[in-house]
Amino acid sequence: MLSPAHLAFAAAFLLVFRSSAPAAAARPIFDGKPSPSEATATARWLAAQNTWGVLSTISSDLSGAPFGNVVSYSDGVPGEGRGIPYFYLTTLDPTARDALEDERTSFTLSEFPLGTCGKIDPENPTCAKLTLNGKLKMVDLQSSEADLAKLALFTKHAEMKDWPKNHHFKIFKLEIENIFLIDWFGGPKPISPSQYLEFGRNQSVMSS
Amino acid sequence: MLSPAHLAFAAAFLLVFRSSAPAAAARPIFDGKPSPSEATATARWLAAQNTWGVLSTISSDLSGAPFGNVVSYSDGVPGEGRGIPYFYLTTLDPTARDALEDERTSFTLSEFPLGTCGKIDPENPTCAKLTLNGKLKMVDLQSSEADLAKLALFTKHAEMKDWPKNHHFKIFKLEIENIFLIDWFGGPKPISPSQYLEFGRNQSVMSS
Repeated sequence: MLSPAHLAFAAAFLLVFRSSAPAAAARPIFDGKPSPSEATATARWLAAQNTWGVLSTISSDLSGAPFGNVVSYSDGVPGEGRGIPYFYLTTLDPTARDALEDERTSFTLSEFPLGTCGKIDPENPTCAKLTLNGKLKMVDLQSSEADLAKLALFTKHAEMKDWPKNHHFKIFKLEIENIFLIDWFGGPKPISPSQYLEFGRNQSVMSS
Repeated sequence: MLSPAHLAFAAAFLLVFRSSAPAAAARPIFDGKPSPSEATATARWLAAQNTWGVLSTISSDLSGAPFGNVVSYSDGVPGEGRGIPYFYLTTLDPTARDALEDERTSFTLSEFPLGTCGKIDPENPTCAKLTLNGKLKMVDLQSSEADLAKLALFTKHAEMKDWPKNHHFKIFKLEIENIFLIDWFGGPKPISPSQYLEFGRNQSVMSS
């Protein structure tokens, strides 16, 4: 007999068949997580619920090898996330330095630390994973966007506002160009940046 | 007055001064975590305690941009970790395909999901972060190393052994060439791959 884990993986990477989720879920859906068939909602939920992830850049210190670094982020104050991840980085750290030389960046989030995967393995496709690829850009500190980004960051990461001024932290954002989401059977879900960014504009679905 | 967060960051990125940790910790040390002054022990502890992380490759689908992906791993059965991360990957997923074209890979772990950072922010340098850079290599399935790796993986990730055979999962390992650890004040700690791999060979410090 096939185990639930076997069933979960059985079509996980069949990239050709991007069917919607089966009616009967092989695992329970917790705590406001959108249905796996709602790919865009799931991606935005992952971005709204997590507080940290891994930013991967092209490393100048390591001759162009990829370099992943743990960072905190926010896509908005709780309940008002807009999907764009903002970061508070210093060029004393390699990630910001790399991005200033080569903007190409990947930002990766897992559902696992949210606790909603239960006993499902972090690599199992029903434990959702989101990778946002694009360009990591510095935000002009004098802009209204920077004010919103600071509010978004400092609300979710209260200690940031006390981080030392002489480290010259700057606000960065990821300009999203490619979205890779796995949240169920059938391989990555096709989501365009505009679908992702426009999702929920007139709804209040991004509960904190 | 300076807050603990401010103090924690005050010397966080002073890359020139790689002093050992101050005698008095600004945050409590939990659950068998080595002292921040024991950099190699801390790196091995992070590798032994975590069960998943982010593998970043040079993406062939995205014209050489970095691509981070959530993966499970194991560095050994609990209590016997050796520091080398083993993975169970299929070429139906982009990470394994990327690595077969360009082996340069970064593997990133955070202390945060272990629960031992308490209320400290995931980006605060006292919440440890480990990035292992090197080459992602396929392990010969007929080798004794593959037997050990399978035991290591299937012990920590029981469902893997039931993952579908027709997805042709293979065992990969990271051959570590560069180690980036931040676990306290003073920027990344200098740890060589041999220090990291040889640590604890004659001790039983890697408690599960």
